[in-house]
Amino acid sequence: MGRITTRRTVVRVTVDQEPRRRQDTLAVEEPLEIRVAGEPLAVTMRTPGHDVELAAGFLVSEGIVARGEQFHTAIHCGGPGSGGGENTYNVLDIALAPGIAPPPPEAARNFYTTSSCGLCGKRSIEAVRTVSAFDVSADAIRLTPELLATLPETLREHQAVFDKTGGLHAAGLFDAATGELLVLREDVGRHNAVDKVVGWALLNNRLPLTETVLQVSGRASFELAQKSVMAGIPVLTAVSAASSLAVDLAEETGLTLVGFLRGESMNVYTHPERVDGAAPRRSSADRA
Amino acid sequence: MGRITTRRTVVRVTVDQEPRRRQDTLAVEEPLEIRVAGEPLAVTMRTPGHDVELAAGFLVSEGIVARGEQFHTAIHCGGPGSGGGENTYNVLDIALAPGIAPPPPEAARNFYTTSSCGLCGKRSIEAVRTVSAFDVSADAIRLTPELLATLPETLREHQAVFDKTGGLHAAGLFDAATGELLVLREDVGRHNAVDKVVGWALLNNRLPLTETVLQVSGRASFELAQKSVMAGIPVLTAVSAASSLAVDLAEETGLTLVGFLRGESMNVYTHPERVDGAAPRRSSADRA
Repeated sequence: MGRITTRRTVVRVTVDQEPRRRQDTLAVEEPLEIRVAGEPLAVTMRTPGHDVELAAGFLVSEGIVARGEQFHTAIHCGGPGSGGGENTYNVLDIALAPGIAPPPPEAARNFYTTSSCGLCGKRSIEAVRTVSAFDVSADAIRLTPELLATLPETLREHQAVFDKTGGLHAAGLFDAATGELLVLREDVGRHNAVDKVVGWALLNNRLPLTETVLQVSGRASFELAQKSVMAGIPVLTAVSAASSLAVDLAEETGLTLVGFLRGESMNVYTHPERVDGAAPRRSSADRA
Repeated sequence: MGRITTRRTVVRVTVDQEPRRRQDTLAVEEPLEIRVAGEPLAVTMRTPGHDVELAAGFLVSEGIVARGEQFHTAIHCGGPGSGGGENTYNVLDIALAPGIAPPPPEAARNFYTTSSCGLCGKRSIEAVRTVSAFDVSADAIRLTPELLATLPETLREHQAVFDKTGGLHAAGLFDAATGELLVLREDVGRHNAVDKVVGWALLNNRLPLTETVLQVSGRASFELAQKSVMAGIPVLTAVSAASSLAVDLAEETGLTLVGFLRGESMNVYTHPERVDGAAPRRSSADRA
């Protein structure tokens, strides 16, 4: 339960050296099935721990809840009153508040499916805009490049489990005004780490996450940009590259998307007006 | 269609320097909806190109097909004879051969869901073992550490798109006897890159992929180990860490799993008997 790392015997092999058996620390990966009112909604392979946050954040990402009071309770399958039996703590059943519509059958995982041939990035973006309860474009927060440059190192310093395993992604939520780390979550899956952060916010009645920055350890995909927008986070920063669809979603929803944030440099893909000095004068523009 | 990279204007910001607008090359990410006999099965965010392979490999990973002749045709929604209309080439409808059962409703994405509370890694592994058409434990291939050490560099040298964007994962299939690269695919999603490789093999009637090594650019998760086993690949090697459940699945199915393959060193997590000299003598064992 909640074990984040485990030990396994491995053989360390190096060319032209004697192999050595040794104990290695691995990140734990286990399935979590999320149910709503008893109905299976999704299975995600995750690192155990903060499971209620993970489920809550997943429901925010999928547009099912947006306020803490809409999330009623989370009960482990086989918990008190269920009659017992084996309980792996890998099945979590969410009760929504009265009046909150449960997700339609098999809908949640991909709310941008289509009945026509016209599935495309543009329609996926429209789906996010339609479903999101929050408008990140209204967030007038401003940041300095100096503050942004501190985020990856702060994230890295707090990644306790990565230090042991080299195998976990991290997502950290920062106060955009002070650069203070509000919460950090690690997981074998990047999307899970972000869902845990967003779920933490939902359960603490902090949505929408205005005036915050979400820093992620890897790349910025459409899915991570979607999760940011659904939680009302106005700035998403990543250590590595952004995909085309992440950039397009960010542009159209008003999300400031920053990639390749390393050392003192970064690429501001969208909405540079939130970054001090980053909206360049036209005279120096378009130098390739 | 099939565009793998695109250009966007970004602002390059460096602390204490004048920001610069410039053109940046991004990896394209677009949704692909996979249908079987007209029924939507899954949407994956992928880099366009090799879409039929991606769909075919996905069906192998999910246990729906295992031989080339079971996969009949793939038709883009809105293709010839459908009556026209907008076609984004992002919806692909697969026809299975007569007699091949289509996937049960909403089943495919997670064939290890459960109706009980007992969802756990062990049962997820059993599900893979039950569904897989192939037995990788029967593959008696042997490799040298020298050959394994060449794989990451060969993969990297052939990653044409990564060089431009810094934003794509890769999966490469190698001949285990010669170290020859058989096929390489890149994608914003690691699972997609692997599905494209496996789909290439299905469509070329090369399943099971006995006597091959699958090299991936990132970490080894349960999902990637599952895809290897489902395709009959006996050796999975990764540049980064393996998760606990990937190791457990590999151990129980007979997959040789190698991680942290960098320079001349590697961690052999499971089935070291396929790696020359890697099954150490007991006398030198268990030095931590």
